[in-house]
Amino acid sequence: MQDVFTWFAYAGTAVFAVSGAMVGLRKSMDVVGVCFVATLTGVGGGTLRDLLLGASPVGWVLQPTDIGICLTCAVLACVFNNWLIGRRAQWLLYADAAGIALFAVLGAAKAEATFAHPLVAILFVAMSACFGGLLRDIVCSEQPVLFRREIYVSAALLGAAVFTLLPVEIGFDGRAFAGLAAALLLRLCAIRWSWTLPFPKYREGAG
Amino acid sequence: MQDVFTWFAYAGTAVFAVSGAMVGLRKSMDVVGVCFVATLTGVGGGTLRDLLLGASPVGWVLQPTDIGICLTCAVLACVFNNWLIGRRAQWLLYADAAGIALFAVLGAAKAEATFAHPLVAILFVAMSACFGGLLRDIVCSEQPVLFRREIYVSAALLGAAVFTLLPVEIGFDGRAFAGLAAALLLRLCAIRWSWTLPFPKYREGAG
Amino acid sequence: MQDVFTWFAYAGTAVFAVSGAMVGLRKSMDVVGVCFVATLTGVGGGTLRDLLLGASPVGWVLQPTDIGICLTCAVLACVFNNWLIGRRAQWLLYADAAGIALFAVLGAAKAEATFAHPLVAILFVAMSACFGGLLRDIVCSEQPVLFRREIYVSAALLGAAVFTLLPVEIGFDGRAFAGLAAALLLRLCAIRWSWTLPFPKYREGAG
Repeated sequence: MQDVFTWFAYAGTAVFAVSGAMVGLRKSMDVVGVCFVATLTGVGGGTLRDLLLGASPVGWVLQPTDIGICLTCAVLACVFNNWLIGRRAQWLLYADAAGIALFAVLGAAKAEATFAHPLVAILFVAMSACFGGLLRDIVCSEQPVLFRREIYVSAALLGAAVFTLLPVEIGFDGRAFAGLAAALLLRLCAIRWSWTLPFPKYREGAG
Repeated sequence: MQDVFTWFAYAGTAVFAVSGAMVGLRKSMDVVGVCFVATLTGVGGGTLRDLLLGASPVGWVLQPTDIGICLTCAVLACVFNNWLIGRRAQWLLYADAAGIALFAVLGAAKAEATFAHPLVAILFVAMSACFGGLLRDIVCSEQPVLFRREIYVSAALLGAAVFTLLPVEIGFDGRAFAGLAAALLLRLCAIRWSWTLPFPKYREGAG
Repeated sequence: MQDVFTWFAYAGTAVFAVSGAMVGLRKSMDVVGVCFVATLTGVGGGTLRDLLLGASPVGWVLQPTDIGICLTCAVLACVFNNWLIGRRAQWLLYADAAGIALFAVLGAAKAEATFAHPLVAILFVAMSACFGGLLRDIVCSEQPVLFRREIYVSAALLGAAVFTLLPVEIGFDGRAFAGLAAALLLRLCAIRWSWTLPFPKYREGAG
């Protein structure tokens, strides 16, 4: 079971790396720049999570599987660039949804193992799942993902909350899959029907 | 005494969180985005400080009072949005000054407890006090606070310097209040009379 | 020998600090802002490296020589501003190349000492050498160094790779100087003849 999760985590890293590489390509970076952004996006969220939880040296320093995955994805993205564009990145959006859902549950599980407070465990999700993308957007001077009023962070939060708040008796597997399903479902619905959260109005000249 | 300080620290976090939430609102983020920015602003500076001083896991992982304060403030800011705007945020500026002064002294005290070099202790102030705001501005694609030629970082530096350089015989309380007062006074004067530091001229076509 | 390296590291920090200060000056920051950016650029890369390798508290907390160097450079840059501009910063470009080469080898050596995987050791270079500049550009809202299609990160990577992959029998000194020379040479050639890496084309309307 733990094995299945590891493979899912690799898949999530790969998806994020590809999304980073594609932004880099759109910005006309050279090969090294694309690899840099891909790696940053792929491992950024997990790195911050490990730093804050006090797990250092950070995982990929001693066991750089994640780094290898990111670099491979970046190079592949450079080679199959036009093909990726041709597909209009629609499938990437769905893969990205899977990535968020998975990292959300992974993050919550890691936080739980460090005896973090449940509220923090749920928030860690937002970090693992979204920080890589935030870094990507900042480094590439893109409008950060936070501005787009899609249900993105919220899907990650839901997944982590389901995982954390379900009673422990259900077992790790059950909680993990319930969290995964909840996050994935919410994100897919949001993509399909363009769901948005309510947002408070701000009137410039109010008063 | 230590208790009074804890409450002041909560107040400082709350003020920073509100300032983050208001930037998020102005950028038309949704509720989750506003909460994210508010939390980043409220705990960002302290988190970096703890990471650099080697205090990990970071404080709010095990005891998430700060996170709770930030989220509460973000939600309240969303609800009372128009009222906040109506006041033209003038009072927020003063509250922010109090927050800087307090975090400056807190940061200096924490650095001292880690046996850091006095020079570093003074600089830690700049971090604790200003890094949250810097993160907020970067994430929201705002012009960072460093560009505005107000006496902002400098007030924090003064507070920390007073705390660090006063002789230990005066006692923690005396040094803390002296530092607090110095930082607050300088910042308030700078707001009131638009004080600025000298800045070196840069002539584009010079030479 | 180790001593020579320490002095070289100070020189690299100074060069980066000056480059940070000059960006700050161009953005019309005040003295404190310039010092802030200079310090961020000078110690940013090394700080991230130490955090990720789990070396905390970070070096300059206990022994703030680097901080002192950065502040001194920032103040000098403010004073000799017009003279620096007059020289058109050409010499700074060469000094910057020396800084990258040196930090690349230093980073690789530090990573090796932490028993990091060779792949990670090589990547650490990119971090030590380039992260300070990346931070500088983000904080100053400049177009990050990653976008410029020069051989910049690549030179650092080459230096680290040479150092890491050379057989241990050659000795620390030999490997260090080989890495240093390779990185410096590649960067200087890239500056002189405007070398660029191949970059994948991205066609907006492709498909």
